[in-house]
Amino acid sequence: MDNFQFYSPTYFEFGRGAEDKVGELLKRFGASKVLIHYGGGSVQKSGLLDKVRANLEKADIPFFELGGVKPNPRSGLVYEGIDICKKEGIDFILAVGGGSVIDSSKAIAAGACSDEDFINFYRGKAKFDKALPVGTILTIAASGSEGSGNSVINDEEIGKKKGIRGDVLRPKFSILNPEWTMTLPAYQTAAGCTDIMAHVCERYFSNTEGVEVTDRLCEALLKTILKEAPIVIENPKDYDARANIMWAGMLAHNNVCGVGRVQDWASHHIEHELSALYDVTHGAGLAVIMPAWMRYVVNINPGKLVDFARNVMEVEEAEDDMATAMRGIEKFEAFLKSIGMPLTFDEIGAKEEDIDYLTEKLLGKNKTEGNYVKLEAEDVKKIYHFAANR
Amino acid sequence: MDNFQFYSPTYFEFGRGAEDKVGELLKRFGASKVLIHYGGGSVQKSGLLDKVRANLEKADIPFFELGGVKPNPRSGLVYEGIDICKKEGIDFILAVGGGSVIDSSKAIAAGACSDEDFINFYRGKAKFDKALPVGTILTIAASGSEGSGNSVINDEEIGKKKGIRGDVLRPKFSILNPEWTMTLPAYQTAAGCTDIMAHVCERYFSNTEGVEVTDRLCEALLKTILKEAPIVIENPKDYDARANIMWAGMLAHNNVCGVGRVQDWASHHIEHELSALYDVTHGAGLAVIMPAWMRYVVNINPGKLVDFARNVMEVEEAEDDMATAMRGIEKFEAFLKSIGMPLTFDEIGAKEEDIDYLTEKLLGKNKTEGNYVKLEAEDVKKIYHFAANR
Repeated sequence: MDNFQFYSPTYFEFGRGAEDKVGELLKRFGASKVLIHYGGGSVQKSGLLDKVRANLEKADIPFFELGGVKPNPRSGLVYEGIDICKKEGIDFILAVGGGSVIDSSKAIAAGACSDEDFINFYRGKAKFDKALPVGTILTIAASGSEGSGNSVINDEEIGKKKGIRGDVLRPKFSILNPEWTMTLPAYQTAAGCTDIMAHVCERYFSNTEGVEVTDRLCEALLKTILKEAPIVIENPKDYDARANIMWAGMLAHNNVCGVGRVQDWASHHIEHELSALYDVTHGAGLAVIMPAWMRYVVNINPGKLVDFARNVMEVEEAEDDMATAMRGIEKFEAFLKSIGMPLTFDEIGAKEEDIDYLTEKLLGKNKTEGNYVKLEAEDVKKIYHFAANR
Repeated sequence: MDNFQFYSPTYFEFGRGAEDKVGELLKRFGASKVLIHYGGGSVQKSGLLDKVRANLEKADIPFFELGGVKPNPRSGLVYEGIDICKKEGIDFILAVGGGSVIDSSKAIAAGACSDEDFINFYRGKAKFDKALPVGTILTIAASGSEGSGNSVINDEEIGKKKGIRGDVLRPKFSILNPEWTMTLPAYQTAAGCTDIMAHVCERYFSNTEGVEVTDRLCEALLKTILKEAPIVIENPKDYDARANIMWAGMLAHNNVCGVGRVQDWASHHIEHELSALYDVTHGAGLAVIMPAWMRYVVNINPGKLVDFARNVMEVEEAEDDMATAMRGIEKFEAFLKSIGMPLTFDEIGAKEEDIDYLTEKLLGKNKTEGNYVKLEAEDVKKIYHFAANR
């Protein structure tokens, strides 16, 4: 086990009616003037936004609003948010929505405390050490941003998704009521479940030895999603299944199942190029890339894929370890297909002729991607080709 | 799944050399005058205390010291600590040791911020809402106090262990270096592992339905201890095994595997009476009580005991669920025995003739104990008798 730091200071209010605590929590965490940041119509249509507004009014907390966040959030709206915060003296940002809204809120939070162009934080050209406090009301179980110090933004100028990370970005509180995820369409629900599994897999597939406790935690979360995802696809209003997925989504990315080990993140980065170029739903892109990655790396470093087959996918033992590992991958693919996820380039509108471009964009100045197997350009291309031609 | 709040804001510095960060962490969390609180000879003999002193001196942080905490910590020393804090203007307490030292530190922390006699907090006669900040350097993996808001003290006047809980008691930081647990004697190591398993079991044995994610997390932690405990008994210097146990010990009690469900805690409370009366090591007392509790409740409410047998103890299926559950309990008893834990009253110096007294002390004004099965006085006596006469 490697040395590590673990810090997850977010206060979680979980369950039915949890959003009724928003005013109380804002006060507890020192908010006096709030920017409510949200996406499109769903939080309006569902009535959640009205509930939040009424709750803040009742608590006498003045607020401004900025809607319009889109999936794979763009930098344009972030600049607008930073302007409002600076001009109006906002001291707390309340994100109401999914990962894109929360990530956009974190970008505003960091940008509002600096004279630097916020995009330079994402481009690695400038550092941030302060951010306005952020709280969240989560409506999509997927990104884990409600409990993480991470934020990903689509840098439109260079056409690439870029991320930042810092403890100051960790939400002060997050309100998780599974009921608000019940109206999410099946495709988005399944994509969220895939993203959650990917967050765990990127940590699980590690060469670090002696990390049994995190191995077992990873398997616990993966098995939870395998059980609950089909239930919510079948019955979107199943409260307990939604609740299990929602809590697993937070745990999958606050790093409790990732500490003490070298993590991978190749699948995420390989996918981010698809999301940036084709505006694919991140989770759907991961459903295309993850099994392709598994099929490629299993030939080079099968160990953890065998564990995955046995302990997560719970396949019957085959004639040898490699065959067992392959059964695990096949069962995982069948699972993704069963919940309506794509497995091929065609299904997400990605094009084989772009593979060289995607690979170049991905690697940039880096020689390799990932850690479980260090992938060079030729390896990455093979993974993309496999996803294109299966 | 029930509604819940989850809050675990402690910063963890984990791994080899982690104690070298103590001065830096004290400053980060605002300490300007520190009380170092510790137990007996082991932190002196190991050299840890000297390292801590040198680190604080180097960081220019003035400190006072109060040693002498004993297992099942007494109230006397707490009064002494409170006096020092008030007189010297201490603003941070650094606990160096195991659960008893940390719990004693939390008691001092709460008492130092109040004019109330601190013991009244534990007796439920007064409330606390403030406490001095506490940091810990953990030397025994067992209590989970390094990540919890709990503290248990032996109330000598009434001869009973009493607990308090509050977010203000959660340590600001905890330093976990598995190397400092390597010199712990085998018996204490095994008792710590038993305590960790008990913290998980008290959460696992629940009638709340639809809590798959916490079920799987509980199983993950239990399986970790089943695997690692025999390794450290065999080879006390196995770093990875010590590390897995140490991190599992924190996760077993910061409530990440207990949220969203009604918990039990009968075994703990039944054991606390043994610790209070006979000064038994808490984990050893639990090894006597837990299987006795299981053997009693399995006849009334077998469900979760069957899951425990299958998913944790991984027994072969027997002719029916009850027989499978019994195999799980037997295998658990064999495990406890194999790591050197007692299973009977005799082995811990407890006396059958005290059972009526123990039961009366336990229940007090309450009619029942526990939740998975609500135990009345007659049930509790049967569990004690079983432990006495097996």
